[in-house]
Amino acid sequence: MDYNAILQEIAEEVKPLMGQGKVADYIPALANINPNQFAMTITLFDGTQYSVGSADTLFSIQSISKLYTFTLALKHYGYELYKRIGREPSGNPFNSLVQLEYEHGIPRNPFINAGAIVVTDALMDHHPQSDIAYNEIRDFIRLIADETTIDRDEIVARSEMEHGYRNLALANLMKSFGNINNDILDVVQTYFNHCAIEMNTKMLSRSMLYLANHGTDPINGEVYITPQQAKRINAVMLTCGHYDASGDFAFHVGLPGKSGVGGGIVAVIPKQMGIAVWSPALNGQGNSLVGTHALELFTTKTGLSIF
Amino acid sequence: MDYNAILQEIAEEVKPLMGQGKVADYIPALANINPNQFAMTITLFDGTQYSVGSADTLFSIQSISKLYTFTLALKHYGYELYKRIGREPSGNPFNSLVQLEYEHGIPRNPFINAGAIVVTDALMDHHPQSDIAYNEIRDFIRLIADETTIDRDEIVARSEMEHGYRNLALANLMKSFGNINNDILDVVQTYFNHCAIEMNTKMLSRSMLYLANHGTDPINGEVYITPQQAKRINAVMLTCGHYDASGDFAFHVGLPGKSGVGGGIVAVIPKQMGIAVWSPALNGQGNSLVGTHALELFTTKTGLSIF
Amino acid sequence: MDYNAILQEIAEEVKPLMGQGKVADYIPALANINPNQFAMTITLFDGTQYSVGSADTLFSIQSISKLYTFTLALKHYGYELYKRIGREPSGNPFNSLVQLEYEHGIPRNPFINAGAIVVTDALMDHHPQSDIAYNEIRDFIRLIADETTIDRDEIVARSEMEHGYRNLALANLMKSFGNINNDILDVVQTYFNHCAIEMNTKMLSRSMLYLANHGTDPINGEVYITPQQAKRINAVMLTCGHYDASGDFAFHVGLPGKSGVGGGIVAVIPKQMGIAVWSPALNGQGNSLVGTHALELFTTKTGLSIF
Amino acid sequence: MDYNAILQEIAEEVKPLMGQGKVADYIPALANINPNQFAMTITLFDGTQYSVGSADTLFSIQSISKLYTFTLALKHYGYELYKRIGREPSGNPFNSLVQLEYEHGIPRNPFINAGAIVVTDALMDHHPQSDIAYNEIRDFIRLIADETTIDRDEIVARSEMEHGYRNLALANLMKSFGNINNDILDVVQTYFNHCAIEMNTKMLSRSMLYLANHGTDPINGEVYITPQQAKRINAVMLTCGHYDASGDFAFHVGLPGKSGVGGGIVAVIPKQMGIAVWSPALNGQGNSLVGTHALELFTTKTGLSIF
Repeated sequence: MDYNAILQEIAEEVKPLMGQGKVADYIPALANINPNQFAMTITLFDGTQYSVGSADTLFSIQSISKLYTFTLALKHYGYELYKRIGREPSGNPFNSLVQLEYEHGIPRNPFINAGAIVVTDALMDHHPQSDIAYNEIRDFIRLIADETTIDRDEIVARSEMEHGYRNLALANLMKSFGNINNDILDVVQTYFNHCAIEMNTKMLSRSMLYLANHGTDPINGEVYITPQQAKRINAVMLTCGHYDASGDFAFHVGLPGKSGVGGGIVAVIPKQMGIAVWSPALNGQGNSLVGTHALELFTTKTGLSIF
Repeated sequence: MDYNAILQEIAEEVKPLMGQGKVADYIPALANINPNQFAMTITLFDGTQYSVGSADTLFSIQSISKLYTFTLALKHYGYELYKRIGREPSGNPFNSLVQLEYEHGIPRNPFINAGAIVVTDALMDHHPQSDIAYNEIRDFIRLIADETTIDRDEIVARSEMEHGYRNLALANLMKSFGNINNDILDVVQTYFNHCAIEMNTKMLSRSMLYLANHGTDPINGEVYITPQQAKRINAVMLTCGHYDASGDFAFHVGLPGKSGVGGGIVAVIPKQMGIAVWSPALNGQGNSLVGTHALELFTTKTGLSIF
Repeated sequence: MDYNAILQEIAEEVKPLMGQGKVADYIPALANINPNQFAMTITLFDGTQYSVGSADTLFSIQSISKLYTFTLALKHYGYELYKRIGREPSGNPFNSLVQLEYEHGIPRNPFINAGAIVVTDALMDHHPQSDIAYNEIRDFIRLIADETTIDRDEIVARSEMEHGYRNLALANLMKSFGNINNDILDVVQTYFNHCAIEMNTKMLSRSMLYLANHGTDPINGEVYITPQQAKRINAVMLTCGHYDASGDFAFHVGLPGKSGVGGGIVAVIPKQMGIAVWSPALNGQGNSLVGTHALELFTTKTGLSIF
Repeated sequence: MDYNAILQEIAEEVKPLMGQGKVADYIPALANINPNQFAMTITLFDGTQYSVGSADTLFSIQSISKLYTFTLALKHYGYELYKRIGREPSGNPFNSLVQLEYEHGIPRNPFINAGAIVVTDALMDHHPQSDIAYNEIRDFIRLIADETTIDRDEIVARSEMEHGYRNLALANLMKSFGNINNDILDVVQTYFNHCAIEMNTKMLSRSMLYLANHGTDPINGEVYITPQQAKRINAVMLTCGHYDASGDFAFHVGLPGKSGVGGGIVAVIPKQMGIAVWSPALNGQGNSLVGTHALELFTTKTGLSIF
């Protein structure tokens, strides 16, 4: 397939959508970004990359980081992790407290905020100090993205903490149910640290290869997780990866994927490639408006879909 | 692959689970069934079938019928149908009124009861008379299952109606929001009629082929729906096919599937086969306990999975 | 106290509020009423009445009828009635299904719609035929209001039934939990029949005397209920009589009261008088906007309040 | 009336209930209390007190303190306070986050935990330092109870803070909606400080006189709040003073009252007296089991009731 041509077509076809949607505005660092940016990269199993747009521009990966922490926690704890989080779609906005209260502090899945905070807390059980815990997460991302320069934007991390009352509410509520072990401020700070990591679409699509290849990096042969764990991460991405629009994403795009409010989305075509797309303006459900559309165009044009 | 051997192994391995779970007991006709029954059939694109267990025994397909009515309504209305139902997982039990009220009478997806009742109502917009509407549904199922004897169990249908107050509550609530057009008693009766249809695993697995083959029957070449519609039905099955355990099913089985409280489950392996399994005792989420386990064993043993 | 002067003052002071609020518009018979009407009557224990405005104009008492059916059901069943309904404020709109579902079909109190439907069903346990059940209710109201002409507006009753899907949803939901004994359509029709009764403020304020006088009519000496029952009905009026604005009514008016969407409100000053006010336009919580204000003025001007 | 005899009778009649219920056990300081204690005091407008049981024993007033902070905040802010809190019953447990989320961080009333935390935050707007804010509250209680020794139990206050994650969750959630102005830890610490104040039934019943007397202390003539404010506080006590059992308390006791998990309850008979009762074991709704019963006996025996 002529992936270059397809990506060019997509870039052309999404242009009319530029200007729609709204960038995340709950912290200044994200609110001030130029919304009219676009990038898309696919990475094949031999390392070949095809890109269009600003594929070298770094942006805040935000909730995409939850995919990496979930993987890392599964490496450490395996199936035990599911005593502390579920894997069901939530049917509620990503930061709702309602369901968490009804379900006694066990978050529905690792991709809603509450679930990701529990995952971060689990990682801190080994490294209770916030900075060391963050370093472990960052180093794992550097490893799977094969890129040693990846790091957080400290201004974003600090700014999130200053506006993070709802996440602190979630963490305190879970602590009241006994589902947070470490100091709440440390856990939430670590969580914001990994959300503030910056990457570009080249790095992100590269980092998806182990999930497309049953847990093993197809380029360097490194085994990160078991085939079963990789398949199950993909399943959780498909059912829960886009908050309350996960069904819609599966419906329109038909691929396991994970989005972040920075405007990035990663997706996986099993046995074939990793994909990343970026455009900062978000739709009503908090996912990249242009990015979602670009991925739908990609599966339509290529006929690639898990269904 | 030696599918006969695999099915035999599965039948052997699920034996210790017989006796666990509980048959649906809200109507006598279902409550009196012998729980220790099991059947599983796969149907390939050339029509070859492999079965194990009581694959000729008819049982009540119940909510599996929602898959057929959803297909039929998409044939009639296409994308317009989504003005009346969503395609998001519900995060609530299958017959909850809570979400329906908060979301102003628009059911989350076509597989929760409220959604299936709206789909039935949509079909009755063409055939407002209950019996004719039922006949259209039944004939479509006969067509895709290639089996002219398929029909409903009238005792089950009547018995459901006698205990169907919660479904009547759902229908009345949606009517109050303007999302039911036809007479409520007729709509709910038609709904119970198609839920009371009886099939066996041979018929059910045969009837999945069009969904595995992008909308076209691979045996007789009949085009039922478009490739895009077929993929999207599969996506909705994956994210919403098992009520509040849909995430768990995707996680453990990794296939688009739909279950019914009669103990049946159908599943699709895109481009390869249709699958049906049956065992009447249900797990805590209302899905066949042994059936779910058998499907998990099947994807583990064959390595077939969409992820 | 010069009640005539006080009522005149009130009528004058509420004039600027005329034009605010909105009449109930869910059925044509109520929607077409002239909103700029006002009446207020107080009835003392010796039968003396003071009125202002259109105190002879009949209007639909709607939910005020729930007070009479609640009294009648307490006469029949006493404390047993509380097995089927609670007496707690609901914290939700008057016709919500959410709480009813969480609390397994037991309505929070006799004044939300679900609770009033259960009360009507309880009355029909003696008189399963809708018309006879209605007649018993009507005759009781005639008795306590000392007015033999009181009856329902049949057009309103029929019209309510045609738009009563939400109440049918409530009734079906409660039936699914086993908390409705009689035929659903009959129960809901009887409920709409008593809601469609017409009275004026003279009749309504007269009918409150037994509640102001511990269960005994102070004029004719008739004992309707026990002192304890009367006090408790007043308590339930105070905490639950105005749906989700009950706290606000207690806060501003400080009297036990019950409102209806026809624009009427009745209130009780223990040991002193019955009060009725009417003005059709409703505030955001579904209570008479001018009526609520008039009652607040009355307690402010007279210093009469239970607190 | 022979109040001594009545109180003796009550003490006798509640004896068989001793042993029922359960003391609050979320912090050790409360869990270790002897449940079989009882005290009751009434204070008349001339200062005469009648007591039975351990009326000199100090206990933790807990949520009764919310009544004093609510009064104090009304003194400071008047009607403006209602921009930040409502006055409707909540229909949910006292520490639920659900309603708070749906209603955008505005607590339903000043007596649920969220509401009391907002009230404490409002008091800290004048005195942002926790200790000074606490001192103002304590001094006001000393004033109205006419007892200069009243103070907090520091072990209880500290212990609450160590187990206060749910209250921290509430405070963070409200902060995310902009309804908390001061430092969260300081606000919650101040809140726990005033909950940890210790009083006995003599002090508590004395402190209710201003509410029974329209805002003015009947003994020393001090005007604390306006008559309207006092009546409205009584109204809020009646509709919201006992969490999700407020309707039940109004129904059975028929007086404005406020309870605390330390087992104390205060109540007001307008124009006549203040009442306090104490017994540590709680009923299922978190109110003193014996205390509630004693108050019901008191209104039954004396015929005193606002209805």
